[in-house]
Amino acid sequence: MAGLFISFEGVDGVGKTTQVERLRAALEAAGREVVVTREPGGTPLGRAIRRLLLHGVPADEAESGARNATGGKAAKAAPADIAPRAEALLFAADRAQHVAEVIRPALERGAVVITDRYLDSSLAYQAGGRELTADEIRSLSMWGTNGLLPDRTYLLDMDPALSHSRLTHDEDRMESAGDGFQRRTREAFLGLAAAEPERFRVIDASRTIDEVWAAIRGDVDGLLADAGLAAGDDAGEPV
Amino acid sequence: MAGLFISFEGVDGVGKTTQVERLRAALEAAGREVVVTREPGGTPLGRAIRRLLLHGVPADEAESGARNATGGKAAKAAPADIAPRAEALLFAADRAQHVAEVIRPALERGAVVITDRYLDSSLAYQAGGRELTADEIRSLSMWGTNGLLPDRTYLLDMDPALSHSRLTHDEDRMESAGDGFQRRTREAFLGLAAAEPERFRVIDASRTIDEVWAAIRGDVDGLLADAGLAAGDDAGEPV
Repeated sequence: MAGLFISFEGVDGVGKTTQVERLRAALEAAGREVVVTREPGGTPLGRAIRRLLLHGVPADEAESGARNATGGKAAKAAPADIAPRAEALLFAADRAQHVAEVIRPALERGAVVITDRYLDSSLAYQAGGRELTADEIRSLSMWGTNGLLPDRTYLLDMDPALSHSRLTHDEDRMESAGDGFQRRTREAFLGLAAAEPERFRVIDASRTIDEVWAAIRGDVDGLLADAGLAAGDDAGEPV
Repeated sequence: MAGLFISFEGVDGVGKTTQVERLRAALEAAGREVVVTREPGGTPLGRAIRRLLLHGVPADEAESGARNATGGKAAKAAPADIAPRAEALLFAADRAQHVAEVIRPALERGAVVITDRYLDSSLAYQAGGRELTADEIRSLSMWGTNGLLPDRTYLLDMDPALSHSRLTHDEDRMESAGDGFQRRTREAFLGLAAAEPERFRVIDASRTIDEVWAAIRGDVDGLLADAGLAAGDDAGEPV
């Protein structure tokens, strides 16, 4: 494909959003088309799926359970009611739609696609923290995306005690699983990066925003040059 | 497992609901616990998924697309916008939840579970009518259900021209795909039955309700005897 596909990974609070925006601004200033997106929820369908995963089943769906022999549930079903395999399939469906609707069309027209979380988040969060294996999650995702992997993945890494203190928004389901869960997830991310050193760059995210950005910028320049994207007519200055 | 798992398959309009209710009544009269359920939508999560599949993404999800670089969509996303692989993963998620929440617990306590559609509908509708292979759909489903197949599957079979004339409810997405689609789906069902003659019984559903029921009843009696369920303390008369 003609474009370049970059993912940012890491636990919440490590500064992914900030660095994604820095990279977007720099690439756009250099005259490139940039598509910034995210998982879960990079499409309307994905946002509907994300709502199911994070906040449970809408009350009207649960109430219509009276039709069913299992008996009606009066209250909204709690997120914990979602079976692990169903959850994994829903995340894979979100990603499949995301690739088909957003990522692949953008890459085909030559854009740089930057996604905040992708496959590795599924591997680290679902396989790292719950009962399914990474191989199973990877197989689902690779089937759903027809085998699309990022050209580069930046893992923003820091001690969970630091990243947790940076979080300002409400706890969601993943975060509420506690510090032990965050530590295991970090280790899972580091394991994934060690297994694919060509695709991953592990960035020490405990440094200042400018320092983290300098590390990413240096790598992206090389990546664009390798992809033959640095020498375009309107390429202008290096990132 | 202690119970018995029976699925009914066939295109819409062949009389599955009527025969499911006959079987339920007969088994309950014989003193058995019966759980009647259906796909898609056998659980609250499944109903939420089914709504996404049949009617598209809720307007509020589509509108919040303004957050995303792909641009907000003003109108509700049409069902046709769901990518084939995402759709297959959503059906598999529905089934995974259905098995984990309803079917497996009922079988484990010794109930007879009767489901209106299961795996074979996915194979016939998704693989028969669209771009994915039956092997792919089967693999997803077998992973999602941890390998649970029915002990018996009744395929109610008739010419689509007949079954179509029996339909009284509103068209949904599958039905609106037209008669050619219904014919291909029927052929797909028959192919599945031919490949697994031990599990399937093909029932000529163009006969009267009583004749169809007699064919099913005779088979179920043998099935219960084989499963050792016919001789229970409270078994009473044969079905």
